[in-house]
Amino acid sequence: MKIALFLTSVPVDKAELEGYNVVVIDVLRATTSICAALAAGARGVVPTATSGEAGDMRAKIGPELVVLAGERNGVKIEGFELGNSPAEFTPETVEGKLVIMTTTNGTLALRRATGGHRLLAGSLVNVSKVAEAIAADQRDLRLVCSGREGHFSIEDTICGGMLIHQLVTQHGIEVELNDAGSLALLLYRTNKSAIRQAIAQGEHGRFLTSIGFSGDVQLATDVDSLPILPVLRDGRLVRADDPA
Amino acid sequence: MKIALFLTSVPVDKAELEGYNVVVIDVLRATTSICAALAAGARGVVPTATSGEAGDMRAKIGPELVVLAGERNGVKIEGFELGNSPAEFTPETVEGKLVIMTTTNGTLALRRATGGHRLLAGSLVNVSKVAEAIAADQRDLRLVCSGREGHFSIEDTICGGMLIHQLVTQHGIEVELNDAGSLALLLYRTNKSAIRQAIAQGEHGRFLTSIGFSGDVQLATDVDSLPILPVLRDGRLVRADDPA
Repeated sequence: MKIALFLTSVPVDKAELEGYNVVVIDVLRATTSICAALAAGARGVVPTATSGEAGDMRAKIGPELVVLAGERNGVKIEGFELGNSPAEFTPETVEGKLVIMTTTNGTLALRRATGGHRLLAGSLVNVSKVAEAIAADQRDLRLVCSGREGHFSIEDTICGGMLIHQLVTQHGIEVELNDAGSLALLLYRTNKSAIRQAIAQGEHGRFLTSIGFSGDVQLATDVDSLPILPVLRDGRLVRADDPA
Repeated sequence: MKIALFLTSVPVDKAELEGYNVVVIDVLRATTSICAALAAGARGVVPTATSGEAGDMRAKIGPELVVLAGERNGVKIEGFELGNSPAEFTPETVEGKLVIMTTTNGTLALRRATGGHRLLAGSLVNVSKVAEAIAADQRDLRLVCSGREGHFSIEDTICGGMLIHQLVTQHGIEVELNDAGSLALLLYRTNKSAIRQAIAQGEHGRFLTSIGFSGDVQLATDVDSLPILPVLRDGRLVRADDPA
């Protein structure tokens, strides 16, 4: 299996994704929150690039069916029901609703990474589930790390490396990696006995802790705690086992 | 010393460089060729963003004083005297001349990374020289890896990691690194017994070999073979020991 990993979503060209399985990763916190939302019974999550786009969509669909969620500079957007903490997505807040989400890095990456065969949202909370789906499919793979404002982020890269590691060691897949993929695998293997610590001590982890979200870092590094497979269908992320 | 490394030049914001020492790294091949040009007696190297800009500048300065050098897709630009192979920069081709250079990644990074206290061009061929200058100065540091068309490249990141490693181990400097800096150090330390091999097997190394430039990969990985310190003065890179 050929695997190309992107350390940020900035250089991703939709034409390069054609025919590939694509996994978008934003451990802190969008793809973690997407898993949380779907696990809590949300009908789907629509990634939007801007808060204006999210508001327009709510008006069109009808506010009673919709929950707006998102952050800028880490904190909840004014007028939105939810921020971007995975803990906020509970049956009380999102069950039966469509979540419209806009975040600084993750939803942007999700929008940039369309155009492949199938787009999955991956995070540490569902990494084994994603690895299983990729292994079953056997298509070549593009891993798009969201990064942070155009910069590499350790948490997404470790997650990408863990996914590759699982494909190799647990699914026996022979992989051919680009340079960034090899790097991610090295980063994961170097940190695998202390993933949570490495991420908490990274730039983004420290930032979230500084603004009061250390609990999110804990949740986001709880490996395989939300074994959901979010897949993009018609512009919304739904559970792959959703019959709708 | 605070050190922030950028894996590519794309997210570099000039305002973030103010007051810092800045080292731009493009091992394959621009900063290696810049060292070669200055070692061969060129009066200076002017990095330009486009071939048009390079041509205009030649017309203004006078063709007899100037050598145009550069590549697109790895090969020499039509109408230019030289490509971007370090081996092309010899006393015969460049001595006493001003080299105007435009390359796909390196000269672009050099243009993006202006605005700091001092801009140095670093590569494996002059890494110890650069580390010495940075250590002597003690200012905080920004390392800008050129990368390759917006993507991470293993050779620049290893070089950045080697520079950090030297600051720590040979100059006894206590460093505070951003995530990408830690990653670079890890990548260097993992590969330090086989740097040339790691780079030759990377994407860019394989590409250059495929188009006939494997000799350049050898030259560019000959650590400390061109102990020159190129510093930007008035838009041109000159030897720091140049009295002019």
